[in-house]
Amino acid sequence: MSRYLTISLAILALAGCATQAEQVAAPVLTKEAVATQIGEKPTPTSPPTGQQWLYGSAEGTIASAQTYQAMAQFVRAKALNRAIKTQAVLADGSTPDAPRFDSCGTKPLAAVFDADETLIWNVGAMRFMAEQGKDFDPAIWNAWEKSGAGKALAMPGAIEALKTMRDAGVTIIANTNRTSANAKGTEDTLRAAGLGEFKHGETLFLMGDDVTGSSKDARRSTIAARYCVVALAGDQLGDFANAFNAKGISVADRKKLATHPAIAPLWGNGWFLFSNPVYGPSIRGGYDEIFSAETKWEPAP
Amino acid sequence: MSRYLTISLAILALAGCATQAEQVAAPVLTKEAVATQIGEKPTPTSPPTGQQWLYGSAEGTIASAQTYQAMAQFVRAKALNRAIKTQAVLADGSTPDAPRFDSCGTKPLAAVFDADETLIWNVGAMRFMAEQGKDFDPAIWNAWEKSGAGKALAMPGAIEALKTMRDAGVTIIANTNRTSANAKGTEDTLRAAGLGEFKHGETLFLMGDDVTGSSKDARRSTIAARYCVVALAGDQLGDFANAFNAKGISVADRKKLATHPAIAPLWGNGWFLFSNPVYGPSIRGGYDEIFSAETKWEPAP
Repeated sequence: MSRYLTISLAILALAGCATQAEQVAAPVLTKEAVATQIGEKPTPTSPPTGQQWLYGSAEGTIASAQTYQAMAQFVRAKALNRAIKTQAVLADGSTPDAPRFDSCGTKPLAAVFDADETLIWNVGAMRFMAEQGKDFDPAIWNAWEKSGAGKALAMPGAIEALKTMRDAGVTIIANTNRTSANAKGTEDTLRAAGLGEFKHGETLFLMGDDVTGSSKDARRSTIAARYCVVALAGDQLGDFANAFNAKGISVADRKKLATHPAIAPLWGNGWFLFSNPVYGPSIRGGYDEIFSAETKWEPAP
Repeated sequence: MSRYLTISLAILALAGCATQAEQVAAPVLTKEAVATQIGEKPTPTSPPTGQQWLYGSAEGTIASAQTYQAMAQFVRAKALNRAIKTQAVLADGSTPDAPRFDSCGTKPLAAVFDADETLIWNVGAMRFMAEQGKDFDPAIWNAWEKSGAGKALAMPGAIEALKTMRDAGVTIIANTNRTSANAKGTEDTLRAAGLGEFKHGETLFLMGDDVTGSSKDARRSTIAARYCVVALAGDQLGDFANAFNAKGISVADRKKLATHPAIAPLWGNGWFLFSNPVYGPSIRGGYDEIFSAETKWEPAP
C-alpha cells in the first residue's frame, strides 16, 4: 500500500512541481510493477501483507511475546543483581561503532520503550488508513494520537513483561515521536491499553520536548541523567541511537553499523528489537540494495 | 521516518493544491527525504516490503541475530545443566492445548531447525521470482533446491549460534519441507552457507521421508526417538506442531492456540520463532480477521 499511495502522491507532486521533479525519478506504473504488488497494497477486503503478519498472524503475536519474555527476564535479572550497572544508553557523543556507556552510580533503574509498534499496536488507525487505501496520512495520524485511546492494543506479552519489570523496581518510560501537543491522548492511549500510567515529562517523552525533532538521542540523554537505563526497546534503530538514521546512510551501511562488533552483543542483552515489517526506515531499497550480487541466481534454461 | 517522508511527499503533492494544503502541517521536502523514499515505490526495481524488511534492513538482520543469540544461550545452558531433561517436542498424540513432553532419559542432545527462512535466507530464488513479478513458482523452487548452493545465505547469527550449540555437544538437525528428491542440493546449500554438515536421514529430514507429507510431526517423533530435543526453531508454527496447520483453522483460533497458557511459556524457552513476513501461513486474512471489531476507529468528522 505504501508504494501505491506514495506513487500517486509522487505523480501528483511531479505534475505540480517541475523544478523538484528532477529530485524524483518519474515513477511509471507498469504491469510488472503491479504484479509484484499482489498482496502488498491493501485491497477492499484485506490489509497489506505486513499488517496480516504483524497484527493478524500467530507468528506476529509470538514474535512479540517471545521478545517481551526475553526482555522481562533480562531486566529482572539486572534488577536483582546488586553490582554497579552501566547505562544501556550510548554516552553523549559516542556512536555505535565507538560506543561508550556511562556508569549508573546509584540512580534508580528504568527501561525505555518506543511506543508505536513497540508498546502498542496502532490497529485502529492502521485499519482505517488501509481501508481508505491510504498510506500514512499525517492528519489522520494526528487525530489518532488525540482520540485513539481504547482502540490501540498492548503488544502481545507487554502487559505481563511490564508488570515483571515494575515488580522488580524498574521504572517504565516511553520515548516516542508522537507529538508533545498530543501528550494527553498518548497518556490515555497507553493507559487504556492496560500498560499503566505514563506522565509527560516524567515517564513519557515526546517529539517537541526539545528542539532536536525526531532524534531521540537528547531525550535518552535526559532520561539517563535521572535513571540507570538497563534496557532499550524499539522497532526501529532510531529507538537505540539516532546515528542509524543518519541522512543518506545506505541500506548496507546501516546494516553494517547495526551489526558492528562493538554493539552486536547488545541485541537481546540490553537492546531489544521488535519486528515491524509494516512501516519505518527498514522498508526501503531496490533489488541491488536488498540483495548482494554474489547471491544472484537463475534457474538453468 | 517513513511518516516524515510521506508527509514530505504529501506536501510536495499538495504544493499545487491550496485547498488540501491546509490539511497538513508543512515540513520541507529535502533531497535526502526523496532519496530514502526510493524503494517504497512500486517499480520493477524494488522487491516487496516484506523482502525489504527481512533481507535488506538492519532491523530484519537484528531480529534474526537477537533470536539466535537467545537460542544459543538457552541451548548452551541446557547442555551444561546435568539434570534429566524433557523433550521440547510434543509427545505423540498430545496437542498444544493439552501438551505432554516425554522425559529424555540418557539420549544425546539435539536442537531441531526448519531450514528455509530459519537457517538460511533463500535470497537467490526470492530475488529471481520477485524480479519476474512472480509470487511462488514450484518449478523455480524445485530448481532452487537442486542448484541454489552458494546463493543462499546463513541467517544472521546462525553460524555463531550453531557453533556455540555444537561446542556444547548438541547435534544440529534440520527438519524441512524441502523434498527428499533434492536431498543432495539441500545438503550442499546448507554446507555452502557455512552451516556445516547435514546428512539426509541422520541430521536432515525432508518431505517425502515418510507418508505424512508436509506435516513435520512424524519426523519430529523420529528425531525424538533418537535424541533429546532441547529446542525447536522455525519461522512458521508448523515447525513446532502440525496442529497449528489444521485444515480450516481460523486466523483467530490459530493465534489462540499458539498463545494457549499450556505452551505460551515455551516461546523463547525451548521454542524459538524467527520473523518471516515474506511468505507462509502467517500471510492471510481479511480486515475482520486481522483486526477486532472492538478496535475499529475513525477520525471525528
